[in-house]
Amino acid sequence: MQTENSAIPNFDMGPNHLLPAIAQDASSHRVLMLAWMNAEAWEETLRSGYAVYFSRSRNQLWRKGETSGHRQKVVEIRVDCDADTILVMVEQTGAACHEGYESCFFRKVDAENGVTIAEKRLVDPRDVYGTTK
Amino acid sequence: MQTENSAIPNFDMGPNHLLPAIAQDASSHRVLMLAWMNAEAWEETLRSGYAVYFSRSRNQLWRKGETSGHRQKVVEIRVDCDADTILVMVEQTGAACHEGYESCFFRKVDAENGVTIAEKRLVDPRDVYGTTK
Repeated sequence: MQTENSAIPNFDMGPNHLLPAIAQDASSHRVLMLAWMNAEAWEETLRSGYAVYFSRSRNQLWRKGETSGHRQKVVEIRVDCDADTILVMVEQTGAACHEGYESCFFRKVDAENGVTIAEKRLVDPRDVYGTTK
Repeated sequence: MQTENSAIPNFDMGPNHLLPAIAQDASSHRVLMLAWMNAEAWEETLRSGYAVYFSRSRNQLWRKGETSGHRQKVVEIRVDCDADTILVMVEQTGAACHEGYESCFFRKVDAENGVTIAEKRLVDPRDVYGTTK
């Protein structure tokens, strides 16, 4: 085990000081989603033990699960070789995807069949977010 | 199984028409790396069955493994709910990381211990890329 001292992660490396953060289920190892973190989201994630992202559309911190209850408890955090991507291994409560799927990656694409929905919804998003979402 | 017709993935959604592409090992389910694809890299990936990215530093297509031999054979491709992130499940030959680790995510970070190297190198990068890399 070595210890390093440089800026890891390095938020200066990302567009608008945002870095991609991959959430992976710590038990099933499914990749659940990709979102973005700024330094503030990163620090709150480390401090609170729950995944916090930065919402580019709402331009504010996004405490994942605050509305839906589908929080992500942090099990382990990794940062990549270039210090510009974050991997958060989590215990996911409920569905990671706002469309009600376990994972946001419910669409399969191949050259032969094009785009297909490869999974079933865990929950109806209207039950979680109301009817307007 | 439903079929959709809109632009999936939608390269207009990404900075400079680039979308993040996560490579995951199809057998071990380890997240190996994150790189970027433009429309051309995406199309060549679909067509060739091997992962092709767009290198932001070299500003050109990056046929992963062309130098190192550490190619990524595509097993399955997923696109997320917002159509702005790609997940490529691959059979990885050799080390995914240019630093010689199986995965680029070899650094662990936690609030208590800071940054630690959590893994051992599979290969010495000098043996793969020469001494200057």
